[in-house]
Amino acid sequence: MSTGEPLVVGVDFGTLSGRAVVVRVRDGAELGSAVSEYRHGVIDRILPETGHGLPPDWALQVPSDYVDVLRTAVPEAVRAAGADPADVIGIGTDFTACTMVPTTAEGTPLCELPEFAGEPHAYVKLWRHHSAQPQADRINALARKRGESWLPRYGGLISSEWEFAKALEVFEEAPEVYDRMRHWVELADWIVWQLSGTYVRNACTAGYKGILQDGRYPGAEFLEELAPGFGSFVDDKLVQPLGALGAKAGNLSAQAAEWTGLPEGIAVAVGNVDAHVTAPAVQAVEPGQMVAIMGTSTCHVMNGAELREVPGMCGVVDGGIVSGKWGYEAGQSGVGDIFAWFVEHGVPASYVEDAREAGISVHELLTRLASVQEIGEHGLVALDWHSGNRSVLVDHELSGVVVGQTLATRAEDTYRALLEATAFGTRTIVETFERAGVPVTELIVAGGLVKNPLLMQIYADVTNLPLSVAGSAQSPALGSAIHAAVAAGAHPDVPAAALAMGSVRRAVHRPIAENVKAYDDLYTEYAALHDYFGRGANDVMHRLAARRRAARKGQHR
Amino acid sequence: MSTGEPLVVGVDFGTLSGRAVVVRVRDGAELGSAVSEYRHGVIDRILPETGHGLPPDWALQVPSDYVDVLRTAVPEAVRAAGADPADVIGIGTDFTACTMVPTTAEGTPLCELPEFAGEPHAYVKLWRHHSAQPQADRINALARKRGESWLPRYGGLISSEWEFAKALEVFEEAPEVYDRMRHWVELADWIVWQLSGTYVRNACTAGYKGILQDGRYPGAEFLEELAPGFGSFVDDKLVQPLGALGAKAGNLSAQAAEWTGLPEGIAVAVGNVDAHVTAPAVQAVEPGQMVAIMGTSTCHVMNGAELREVPGMCGVVDGGIVSGKWGYEAGQSGVGDIFAWFVEHGVPASYVEDAREAGISVHELLTRLASVQEIGEHGLVALDWHSGNRSVLVDHELSGVVVGQTLATRAEDTYRALLEATAFGTRTIVETFERAGVPVTELIVAGGLVKNPLLMQIYADVTNLPLSVAGSAQSPALGSAIHAAVAAGAHPDVPAAALAMGSVRRAVHRPIAENVKAYDDLYTEYAALHDYFGRGANDVMHRLAARRRAARKGQHR
Repeated sequence: MSTGEPLVVGVDFGTLSGRAVVVRVRDGAELGSAVSEYRHGVIDRILPETGHGLPPDWALQVPSDYVDVLRTAVPEAVRAAGADPADVIGIGTDFTACTMVPTTAEGTPLCELPEFAGEPHAYVKLWRHHSAQPQADRINALARKRGESWLPRYGGLISSEWEFAKALEVFEEAPEVYDRMRHWVELADWIVWQLSGTYVRNACTAGYKGILQDGRYPGAEFLEELAPGFGSFVDDKLVQPLGALGAKAGNLSAQAAEWTGLPEGIAVAVGNVDAHVTAPAVQAVEPGQMVAIMGTSTCHVMNGAELREVPGMCGVVDGGIVSGKWGYEAGQSGVGDIFAWFVEHGVPASYVEDAREAGISVHELLTRLASVQEIGEHGLVALDWHSGNRSVLVDHELSGVVVGQTLATRAEDTYRALLEATAFGTRTIVETFERAGVPVTELIVAGGLVKNPLLMQIYADVTNLPLSVAGSAQSPALGSAIHAAVAAGAHPDVPAAALAMGSVRRAVHRPIAENVKAYDDLYTEYAALHDYFGRGANDVMHRLAARRRAARKGQHR
Repeated sequence: MSTGEPLVVGVDFGTLSGRAVVVRVRDGAELGSAVSEYRHGVIDRILPETGHGLPPDWALQVPSDYVDVLRTAVPEAVRAAGADPADVIGIGTDFTACTMVPTTAEGTPLCELPEFAGEPHAYVKLWRHHSAQPQADRINALARKRGESWLPRYGGLISSEWEFAKALEVFEEAPEVYDRMRHWVELADWIVWQLSGTYVRNACTAGYKGILQDGRYPGAEFLEELAPGFGSFVDDKLVQPLGALGAKAGNLSAQAAEWTGLPEGIAVAVGNVDAHVTAPAVQAVEPGQMVAIMGTSTCHVMNGAELREVPGMCGVVDGGIVSGKWGYEAGQSGVGDIFAWFVEHGVPASYVEDAREAGISVHELLTRLASVQEIGEHGLVALDWHSGNRSVLVDHELSGVVVGQTLATRAEDTYRALLEATAFGTRTIVETFERAGVPVTELIVAGGLVKNPLLMQIYADVTNLPLSVAGSAQSPALGSAIHAAVAAGAHPDVPAAALAMGSVRRAVHRPIAENVKAYDDLYTEYAALHDYFGRGANDVMHRLAARRRAARKGQHR
């Protein structure tokens, strides 16, 4: 039963599941949502079709799992909202990135062709597929040698996760797949292609992951020098009309209307990335508003009025977050996963029992115990590099450090030191932006970690910034819905739609002056260790990592 | 029933108990032993007489507990040996040090006088009573300022544990105790006094703990400048005839014969210290043979032919280990207690369960898991300063470090890194001795940690020295028995007695060439971190410790 109120649907494709949410265009009210787990999850050990094992750093997915989200989660969300599908005027999507698939000219993933069903390279390569590191190393070495102008836009380093490293891996390791593929497609765009029948490259992934800068991809000469025969890769397989974020990619196809139960012909928004789409969801569309999406890792996105090259950032892209502004991205490769690792591998049995008795999680128990401490009472300072360092050092071979342990150190002490270390990591990023002429005035936090109040207060005190918190627990899906509303013409642009539909609680956690002062001192210690271990004064971490790799390969025996 | 075989009794007074052993003079065979726990243990919270609380760094004992060892453990050991007391020709003792008590002229501990029963300063101050740190700091500052010649004999630093710091604490905090005391007595000498009725200061503690160098204690002028009125301390309360190690202090008194059941009039050996008395027990009486007594902490003792000033050693004393040789001492303040701390506070429940199922300790489980690793496979390097650093940095405010943790780091990895860190600590000491012209040719290990074969192999590989192992599980008591035999005239001197009665298994663990090479590299990493954190390049540990202290005193709020 139609209420006459226009609605939109946002769909957030995560690493393990897709989430659909039905949102009112007028005020962003979330009326209903549903989640669909991917049937194949992440394939990182055995390819189901053949039973063949995969090398250690691989991570594949199956594209039909995404279509299943359209078929199940979208209609379920509409039902849960008690909405009339006829009221839905648009659909928007966001995806993990950089997640790639090789397709035919029609967009059929090669893994769906019978002859390639047993070929790992024909499947979706998930963002965390990391086996293209040697290719990334060569891209970086050559780009540095040739002084490629795009390299500083990515903090000086192209990631093994991104489009070119993954494509070169296919070119070199599976030439038959490479020859057969007509398009090398970001899943953010592939899903829009499935919805609308139109292949439009979104400005976000094209810029951040596809190295599109000033209208150009890396040149044929560079690519040919990188690998003979690879020179025509951009022209042959990558180049495609670009779509601005918030623009309409096309109209919902009959096929997709059947899958989703939504009206054929409604607007389908240009694709987007889960982190970047969160910015409008939390109304962070102006320069200086840094959004931190804090989960297992943290992604920082922020608009800037001007182009600046920030050392060690992940990328700066024209229109990469909001059309017409420069979108900056940075990240911390380990945050929540460090806390989880510590709880699983560094906390004695008595804490697990105490938590069980109190009916809380071990995280909550440790947080409770750490909360009553004075700043510095634990006597520790840690480096948060257990999963490497993405920004600002861009060095995946760095590792964790704890300094200051005594026989009196307890689990809650180390836990708090790790929380603080990640806050110091964020401050390092903020200060690097500011030194590069990109001021940060507000920190807006989204993601699973916002529910830890101690962590939030530590971030406010360490950064000396007011901490705003996402109003929605499903910000990316809300962000996609905002883009759908703009694509459908219901709001004039993304900033206007964000203002109407986005949701943020401002300055929930404010810096406390005396804490700021105490953390200034501890941050000085962190910064000294950061530079000592991270900037070449002592490359012990690289040597330890090399020795670890060699030992695991048995090269020492 | 006498066998006609001369026997001796050695008694080792430890921190929590005393152990007596009956030994055959001819060959050192250990015929029987018994242990007596101290009834009052270590008093570090509440003084039983008054119920008054003690400050945090205090550690007291009750002297009558030691006499109880003579009364119970000695006769029990004789019974356990099936020996005729009449065959016992001498008794020797060793004690923890520096452990001090104020006494009357007759040797009565002041705490046994009714008027002082409630006065904490009238009790025995155990070696680990640490509240005289401010006094030690002043002693060191003034000695440096005045260029006192004895300071370099102690690596440049007098410990808060030693005789002068503890005495100055009494002088300043309990003047009525100070005034009443006639003697400030090492328990190593007090127990001999109880046995023989004679007060003889042993050359070992007088040198190492009493700063007796070249026949002189610190001078009256120094002491008076340190604290007005303290200038006559040495003459009034400390000076006393000296006894060489292995000499006879006197004959067993009628009273002590009644306590022990041993024949009145037998030889009582001059007192000694548990670590130092271990050297002859393991036949380490020649220069270059370094003995490491490895327990919660490690004490290193070694004879040298000549006087050398080794930076950061605990002390060098003429006749401090074997009469006629220079006795060198060094130490690591945390070893077994670091492993114990980690097992208690850093190992998750699953390991505890696995160990229980396998019927082994968590230490054994972690050792088993760590044993199958290649060197460097864990990717870690640690500093073993959780309890500060005694040698060669002599800095109790240093703390532990672990570098290299990743999300793949497991408990056995960190455990092995900590084992290795203590081995690197020993190598640092060995190398410092060698650089100072005191070569080390053999490492002989005694103490509780010898039973971990992985740890022993790591020490052999890290130091590139053959590792010999004490033949007796009660080396200090055996060492005391050796001194008893010499005091009784049954052997001409301690080296000869050590050869006949001592027990060592030579080169049980030999360095493996490829391991030595791998550990050379890791030691280079340890040494770099050692100097960075320990020699002033980054004084972060001192600042963290100061902040921790301030926070615990609530000065930040």
